[in-house]
Amino acid sequence: MQKENGDADRPADPGLFPSGEARMSSHDPGKCSVDFPVSVVLPAGGTGERTGLQTPKQFCTFLNRPLISYTIQAFERVSWIQSIVVVVAKESTELMTDIVQRFQHKRIRVVQGGSTRHRSIFNGVRALGEGGDGAPRVKPKVVIIHDAVRPFVEEDFLYKIATAAKEHGAAGAIRPLVSTVIATTAEGYLDHSLERARYRASEMPQGFTYDVICRAYERCSESDFEFGTECLHLALQYCGTNAKLIEGPPTLWKVTYKRDLAAAESIIKETLSRSACAITGGSAQAAVLADALQKTMGALDVELDVIPDMMGDNARYLLKGWNFIQVSVSRRCLSEVRATVSALEAANRALLYPVVVVWVHLNGSDGPSLGGGTATAEPAAIMDLASAAKLRNILLYGVQLHRSEEADHWERSVLRMAEITSVLIRERSPALVGQLLQA
Amino acid sequence: MQKENGDADRPADPGLFPSGEARMSSHDPGKCSVDFPVSVVLPAGGTGERTGLQTPKQFCTFLNRPLISYTIQAFERVSWIQSIVVVVAKESTELMTDIVQRFQHKRIRVVQGGSTRHRSIFNGVRALGEGGDGAPRVKPKVVIIHDAVRPFVEEDFLYKIATAAKEHGAAGAIRPLVSTVIATTAEGYLDHSLERARYRASEMPQGFTYDVICRAYERCSESDFEFGTECLHLALQYCGTNAKLIEGPPTLWKVTYKRDLAAAESIIKETLSRSACAITGGSAQAAVLADALQKTMGALDVELDVIPDMMGDNARYLLKGWNFIQVSVSRRCLSEVRATVSALEAANRALLYPVVVVWVHLNGSDGPSLGGGTATAEPAAIMDLASAAKLRNILLYGVQLHRSEEADHWERSVLRMAEITSVLIRERSPALVGQLLQA
Repeated sequence: MQKENGDADRPADPGLFPSGEARMSSHDPGKCSVDFPVSVVLPAGGTGERTGLQTPKQFCTFLNRPLISYTIQAFERVSWIQSIVVVVAKESTELMTDIVQRFQHKRIRVVQGGSTRHRSIFNGVRALGEGGDGAPRVKPKVVIIHDAVRPFVEEDFLYKIATAAKEHGAAGAIRPLVSTVIATTAEGYLDHSLERARYRASEMPQGFTYDVICRAYERCSESDFEFGTECLHLALQYCGTNAKLIEGPPTLWKVTYKRDLAAAESIIKETLSRSACAITGGSAQAAVLADALQKTMGALDVELDVIPDMMGDNARYLLKGWNFIQVSVSRRCLSEVRATVSALEAANRALLYPVVVVWVHLNGSDGPSLGGGTATAEPAAIMDLASAAKLRNILLYGVQLHRSEEADHWERSVLRMAEITSVLIRERSPALVGQLLQA
Repeated sequence: MQKENGDADRPADPGLFPSGEARMSSHDPGKCSVDFPVSVVLPAGGTGERTGLQTPKQFCTFLNRPLISYTIQAFERVSWIQSIVVVVAKESTELMTDIVQRFQHKRIRVVQGGSTRHRSIFNGVRALGEGGDGAPRVKPKVVIIHDAVRPFVEEDFLYKIATAAKEHGAAGAIRPLVSTVIATTAEGYLDHSLERARYRASEMPQGFTYDVICRAYERCSESDFEFGTECLHLALQYCGTNAKLIEGPPTLWKVTYKRDLAAAESIIKETLSRSACAITGGSAQAAVLADALQKTMGALDVELDVIPDMMGDNARYLLKGWNFIQVSVSRRCLSEVRATVSALEAANRALLYPVVVVWVHLNGSDGPSLGGGTATAEPAAIMDLASAAKLRNILLYGVQLHRSEEADHWERSVLRMAEITSVLIRERSPALVGQLLQA
């Protein structure tokens, strides 16, 4: 794939940093603070017919996690959102509750949906006004409604929707039309085409004051509940509220087909692969190798920080990194690899994304792949360690290279080491853990 | 990712079998024969602003090939299409000519585009009526216009468009609207939403009789050339032709954003990975191992055919397979791996897609990874062979497993062998060629 220019369809930060953790974004959270209560309704009752999958698409998994968990995470990390109601079909309630527990989502309630999209959303809105036992609770000022299958919505856009909804009663995301819209005759011929510039596609999220969305649903007809899909239309028809329309970014796209799951996975993988942290164990030789790796991986678009260990100030890498490269020269350091894996486990680092650990080892001299008495013991040891780590969502691989006095040969080895390491980080392939690859 | 049910967005056969080669499709080509001349215009002058890529998206590559070559291939394999005109910006002419040569595309002419989409299409249509030197040639009865960035169009749909265009003068693909379409006020508020069921999205391909499309362009205004985008509209306005609209499959989607390139790549990779061919070299022991592999890979959705060699009738695998597994037990067979690679090279098999060759080897006894005197020579030999093969778009990997008397251990090894082999086939990672992986 070509080098990117602008990445128009990717989020700057696709929910990688749950609130409470250090965030690397330069974004000023003060600018986005909201001084009124905002809650979210996520209708997730769809059957996923269009994906061609047996599992409804919001429950399809990539990188070991269902799509809906990525969407929940996008809201969870926004500090000014007070609660999130996920509305699911009756048969998915248990699955959804398991997902919330397994990925430790907070501020979530799971509510049972109705027979249509509008009925489900109304159930979700009503739940916001009730306690768990049906008792009234503090109602939100604004309700944001979003699709469970649009995982890349960002805080700044949610802020725009929430504040516009408070001011105008309703607000919704729009996007330019991607195709010409045409009207057909009853016989299936072209009647006329619409002037593209005058129309927009209505997307999600949308925001409403609690009063507007409640009144709209209380007043609307059975036919609206049965056949309608557009909340903005109900607000206009039953409350006289003309929604404020806000042009959204391409990141608002909706996972509809199976190919979209591959696209979503590629976006997450790419975001996880932008940087890595090389740990030298304080060895000067390892630091030289790490510097060579840094330069070569930089050319492959992976930014590498080189640190001696994760002590003191460097402990922050443990909380922000998704990729760790343990570098060793001559002296074996499987115990250090084991320590890195343990530290990641202790920090619960791989809860939301698989974390990659690559052990890069430079053998002391030209010669056999595996020198000395460790020849057969080492591959088995790294495989065992990797198999155990994989159960914790930590993916461990080994890359081995050999010192060469010949400059050309050495350069090729370093390049191959960087390429292999980059591809292990990018592809995060569980089937290849524990392999000791040759650079 | 979940197990698929219907694969609604994937082509049954995404152009994997250029015409002239054996096709595995059960489709009856007789049903689709067209008895009038049909040609194609592919406007490919876009700048790809929306992808966020520096390279226009039709020239972005995946699996070593630019997107436009996949689209050309989709038309090239249709026997009743007489010629394809690709219209490109002046600065892309050389690049496009190189692509046509490199991938040995036939029946193609590269034509220079105009300053807008309509001007480019008109240039393409005019070129169909002229010889290379401007002399008149046999004009097509029907012209199909398609986007260079919709690579998954299939023959049966092209047939529908071509025959409807001949009958009605014009025909176009439509799809249901994915979002509600709304009209906005000048101040950016909701004015009204359209009734979704009454409208459709106009997609590609479209077909026109040569006379209708020529007349439409000859009569239309400068303003149409400058600002218009919809050919069906011109046919209606200037020729009074109401196009026949035909509901198209989801495979007609358009590569618009960078994420769509990942989606397209995933579709091609999945299609290439559905089956593989295991070659046992006639060894009974290898056949037993291949049978175990067949069963385990079947559970991973890779259909495996086991053959002794590619002689006689089995030579057909050389012409239809994308994945080859050379199986050996105890006795090394690098020479057989080399022969398979050479046969693939001689057949020009990897011209359009990278072909995977996995050498699966079972060591004779529990013990060191690499027994006997070959311990260090073998990894180097396979790496050298793989490096050379990679230059020919053939990706060679090794997987090694060890015999075990312990049933549990053996089963785990076989499962890992199948998982590793499947993932090598699915991911087609150039960076990992030449590795000898341990199952």
